[in-house]
Amino acid sequence: MRCELVAVGTELLLGQVVDTNSVWLAEQLAASGIDCHFHTSVGDNVGRIVDALRIALDRSDAVVVTGGLGPTQDDVTRDAIAEVMGVPLERDEAVLARIRALFEERGREMVVSNERQADVPVGAVVIPQTRGTAPGLICAVGHRVLYAMPGVPHEMMDMAARSVLPDLMERAGTRSTIVSRVVRTWGLAESTLAERVAPRVEALEAAGNPTIAFLAGGVEGIKIRVTAKAESTEAALAVVEAEDAELRAILGSLVFGVDDDTMESAVGALLEDAGLTLGLAESMTGGLVASRLVNVEGSSAWFKGSVVAYDSQVKFDVLHIPEGPVVSEEAAASMAAGAAKVLGADVGLSVTGVAGPAEQEGMPVGTVFFGLHLDGATDVRYRRLPGDRERVRQFATISLLDMLRRRLLDRL
Amino acid sequence: MRCELVAVGTELLLGQVVDTNSVWLAEQLAASGIDCHFHTSVGDNVGRIVDALRIALDRSDAVVVTGGLGPTQDDVTRDAIAEVMGVPLERDEAVLARIRALFEERGREMVVSNERQADVPVGAVVIPQTRGTAPGLICAVGHRVLYAMPGVPHEMMDMAARSVLPDLMERAGTRSTIVSRVVRTWGLAESTLAERVAPRVEALEAAGNPTIAFLAGGVEGIKIRVTAKAESTEAALAVVEAEDAELRAILGSLVFGVDDDTMESAVGALLEDAGLTLGLAESMTGGLVASRLVNVEGSSAWFKGSVVAYDSQVKFDVLHIPEGPVVSEEAAASMAAGAAKVLGADVGLSVTGVAGPAEQEGMPVGTVFFGLHLDGATDVRYRRLPGDRERVRQFATISLLDMLRRRLLDRL
Repeated sequence: MRCELVAVGTELLLGQVVDTNSVWLAEQLAASGIDCHFHTSVGDNVGRIVDALRIALDRSDAVVVTGGLGPTQDDVTRDAIAEVMGVPLERDEAVLARIRALFEERGREMVVSNERQADVPVGAVVIPQTRGTAPGLICAVGHRVLYAMPGVPHEMMDMAARSVLPDLMERAGTRSTIVSRVVRTWGLAESTLAERVAPRVEALEAAGNPTIAFLAGGVEGIKIRVTAKAESTEAALAVVEAEDAELRAILGSLVFGVDDDTMESAVGALLEDAGLTLGLAESMTGGLVASRLVNVEGSSAWFKGSVVAYDSQVKFDVLHIPEGPVVSEEAAASMAAGAAKVLGADVGLSVTGVAGPAEQEGMPVGTVFFGLHLDGATDVRYRRLPGDRERVRQFATISLLDMLRRRLLDRL
Repeated sequence: MRCELVAVGTELLLGQVVDTNSVWLAEQLAASGIDCHFHTSVGDNVGRIVDALRIALDRSDAVVVTGGLGPTQDDVTRDAIAEVMGVPLERDEAVLARIRALFEERGREMVVSNERQADVPVGAVVIPQTRGTAPGLICAVGHRVLYAMPGVPHEMMDMAARSVLPDLMERAGTRSTIVSRVVRTWGLAESTLAERVAPRVEALEAAGNPTIAFLAGGVEGIKIRVTAKAESTEAALAVVEAEDAELRAILGSLVFGVDDDTMESAVGALLEDAGLTLGLAESMTGGLVASRLVNVEGSSAWFKGSVVAYDSQVKFDVLHIPEGPVVSEEAAASMAAGAAKVLGADVGLSVTGVAGPAEQEGMPVGTVFFGLHLDGATDVRYRRLPGDRERVRQFATISLLDMLRRRLLDRL
């Protein structure tokens, strides 16, 4: 069963609204094991909606169209569907009565244009509305099927869950379910990661289940999506978990979590397990590391705080680092030890460098020194990071957190 | 000139990623006066990308395709374009050299699969990449044009602004220019703001030029977009500027900037003009205020740093506030004065409160105290902010910055 989505609304084509309906429906279709190969957005224009629906019906077994069912003159999805079906629109008295009742219930006056919402292409089955005035439609077009739902997200979701998805599943006659998991990695370029995982991808290709895909996540690392199909959710999950284990065997500590896990939640969990508290000294990141850590729920158990020493004098006065160059190994080491001491933490973590736009102390933009103070010893690392001011900061932040993550893993 | 968008990526069809690229591009096309009638999303499959591109080229003068230009096996947009153009792919040595250089610069290993990114359909013009490894493409297909850009948003936006949009505008040969400006406001609900501006909107309606639209910006305030059409950029800009002045006359200090101005850049400009330096003491915001301020270019001239005192003991030890409740007027005042003193700044700014999920010191989630120390005096403000942990933090950050902005404006 192949199903595709058509979203109607000129506001989508102007970039004024994000099409969250298609994102939600796409997720539901994937979870229901129904293939979806195309999404189309089209404006409030009968001719162009007709074109989009004909193209979609030509290459898929089912089409779900959202939007354009409202009461105003620019709501023309009904007209387009009637044209595609080759039938006229007919006013449905039961639907009209339902709309009238809704207006009365809400104590609002019903204007004539609302009557248009009771117009139904001859032969279409009405999906009763329970939340708004626009009914949905199930329309046979040859041996294909076309579903129409309102564009208001909560009305659409209700109608999809209540009627469209169960109807689709029944037509598909499929009992198969899809489960997917995103394995999150950090530290390798996409191409290098893909090469390491290549033997696994090849081994899976013959069976076609599970499948593996790489998603670039910018500075947040590469995500590997594992998707499995099976007769039950439990069986699909078991396949996903087995593949997750295979990937971890190949990638080791490059994997920092799955799905909604973040680098900071991974670090937080390791600190909590180790019973350690953390203090930061941030220069170029200007509080970014701290602001990510406090987003982790329960961070107050292990996060003490941060000295954001943007001005050099603050490094000398508050962190007590020796006077001298502040973009250096020595400064990073001294800041890390200073952070642990001043903030009363077990672990001190520091970052100093040049975010740009100009060089500093003769050091080029992108120069970064990281410091980590733990168990009486201080490690320092140097890196040259790419990108503009904002990107250098983001890269420095996640690099610093990953340095701590690996140190805590080694310590286990 | 009609242009349509094709977004490539199986993750879009699975609802795992929201297609923000198409939203951004749609806005740019609308602002450039170029009609866009369809958006299509398609998976990482050569045959289906070819289908989508052929359909798009059949009904539009130009097509912009994003995504699928990466180095892995599932990045097949290049192959699809070559098929649509009816030409082979050829390795471009200049592009290859550029990719190699980028890997060397970053000290990372380049694997063989990266070479695929240097494959160019014969006859296509390369848009040089400045931020990533994938170049863009400008491809003539009959008398139509096809642009390809990487799916990574910041790479795509850079390439669109630098090359694709100017090229499109030139081909469109349009003589009327659209200029728009976003006037940024903070402190009023959208309905209240709309009511104040209503007389102006009515006055403009007859002429239809310029137009005014309200865009909700969440915690960042309401944006008012002014769009003017004229025969030259200068003439359109003059109309926009006159309208900007009208809006400021109505809204006064509710307006904090235009276009890319942010609350932090507005605060930075005022501090710089006043010749004042700033130090922060942050509790619940956990470094968020500092991290926004350092994003302002030239912030090192006026920003000293921040003491992120997440743990109460850090407030006592580093900021020297008196022992006692830390979510209180007294604590906020003492933190602001302490920040100025410890960090050696003219202005001390503080925030302490309850971000959630649980109450603290008997204070409910959303309770926030702000402190501002300047010219020997300390002001404190109390607010109860709505939303979850993340939203409360964001609201507290912008509220604190706005408090300083208004104080600096009063001081002029």
